[in-house]
Amino acid sequence: MSNEKKSISDAAIRRFPRYYRYLGELEASGITRISSQELAEKMGLTGSQIRQDFNHFGGFGQQGYGYKIEVLREEIGKILGIDKSKNVIVIGAGNLGQALIGYAGFSHYGFKLTGIFDISEKVIGTQMRDLTVLPMEDLEDFLKTNIVDIAVLTVPASAAAEICEKLCSLGVKGIWNFAHTDLTVPSGVTVVNAHLTDSLMQLCFRMNCDQIN
Amino acid sequence: MSNEKKSISDAAIRRFPRYYRYLGELEASGITRISSQELAEKMGLTGSQIRQDFNHFGGFGQQGYGYKIEVLREEIGKILGIDKSKNVIVIGAGNLGQALIGYAGFSHYGFKLTGIFDISEKVIGTQMRDLTVLPMEDLEDFLKTNIVDIAVLTVPASAAAEICEKLCSLGVKGIWNFAHTDLTVPSGVTVVNAHLTDSLMQLCFRMNCDQIN
Repeated sequence: MSNEKKSISDAAIRRFPRYYRYLGELEASGITRISSQELAEKMGLTGSQIRQDFNHFGGFGQQGYGYKIEVLREEIGKILGIDKSKNVIVIGAGNLGQALIGYAGFSHYGFKLTGIFDISEKVIGTQMRDLTVLPMEDLEDFLKTNIVDIAVLTVPASAAAEICEKLCSLGVKGIWNFAHTDLTVPSGVTVVNAHLTDSLMQLCFRMNCDQIN
Repeated sequence: MSNEKKSISDAAIRRFPRYYRYLGELEASGITRISSQELAEKMGLTGSQIRQDFNHFGGFGQQGYGYKIEVLREEIGKILGIDKSKNVIVIGAGNLGQALIGYAGFSHYGFKLTGIFDISEKVIGTQMRDLTVLPMEDLEDFLKTNIVDIAVLTVPASAAAEICEKLCSLGVKGIWNFAHTDLTVPSGVTVVNAHLTDSLMQLCFRMNCDQIN
C-alpha cells in the first residue's frame, strides 16, 4: 500500500480533502449511502476517477451497494491524517495570521493552536484565543520544550526563508506557507503553499482565457 | 492561439503565477536574462516543462540566448490578464475578509478594491481602506451602477450559494471563493476556490504519506 501511495498525483491529493468535505455535507443532510457515480456527479468528477483514487487505499467497501458515507468519511479522515490531533503554531500575527487564528473551523479537523509568535511590540503580550502572543526570540525555546507538528507561516516573504530553516532544524515536519515566496526544505519536511496572490492571479488567468476563447 | 489556450492543463495554470512571481524576484535582484534551464532549476521544474508552457503562447523570444526577464514578465502579466486594472469587491468583512482587504500587495497586480459588504451591524458603516462597509441589501444596486470584475467571497458556506447566484445574475464574471463549499456557476463565470481548510488537509495528507513511506 505504501508504494501505491507514492504514485498518487498532486491532483488526487487535492481531491481527497474535497471528498472529506463533501461526505461531511452529505452526512449532515442525513444521507447514509452513495455510489461512486452519484458522488462523482455532485463533485464534477467521473465515477472511474473516484474509484481509481479510492483504490489507492484498498477501495473502501462494496461498490455495487454504494459506499457507506460514515465509514468512508472516517477512512478518508485517517488517510488525510486528521484523525490525530496536531499541534500548530502561527508565526506572524498580522491580519492574515489573526484571521487564521480566529478561524474556529480548524479545530474540527484536529488542529490545536498551541503558540503564536510575532516580532511586533504591538501584538506581543496580547491575548489571542487564550494564548499570549510570544516574541520571536522565544521560538527556539518553545520548539525545544513543546511538540509542534505544523507551523503556519504568515510573515513577509523576506523573513520566511530564515524562519523556515530554524523550524526545520528544530524538528517541525509540516509548514503551511502563506509567505509570498517558495521555500526549500530538507527531506522529511512537507510544505504546502497557500500563496493567495498566486490564487488570485489564477482567477484572472482563467477569466482572461475565457474572454479570448 | 485561442485553441491552444484551451488545452492548458490545470497544473500549467498554476505555474504561470509562479513564473510571474519568480521573474519579479529575479528582476528585483538585478538579473536581466535567464535560460529556461536556469529558471527551471530555481523553480524545481524541468526546462522542457517551461518551454512547453511558454510555447502555448508563442514561446517568448530566442531561447538560445535566454529570455529577457523584463519582457518575459510583461508578456506573462498580459497572459495572466493582470496588465489591466480589475475592480474587486469583498463580501464578508470578518477576520479573513479584513485580512484580504488589508493586504496591500493586491494593488500591485492591478486589483482595485471598490466595495465591501457585510451583514453584521458591527462592521456596516465602518471604514476599511477608505471604503465604508455597506450592508448586503445594497449589493444589488451597487452591481447595477458599478462595474465589478471580481467578487471575493469570505462568507460562511451556508450563505455562499445564494450570494453567488446573485453575483452571476448581475454580471460578475470572476469569483474568488473562500467559503468552505464548492459553487455552481453559469458558463462565462470563473470560480477559483481558495479553500483554506482543504489546503491544510493537503498538508496533513502529504505529511501522513511521508510518515508511512
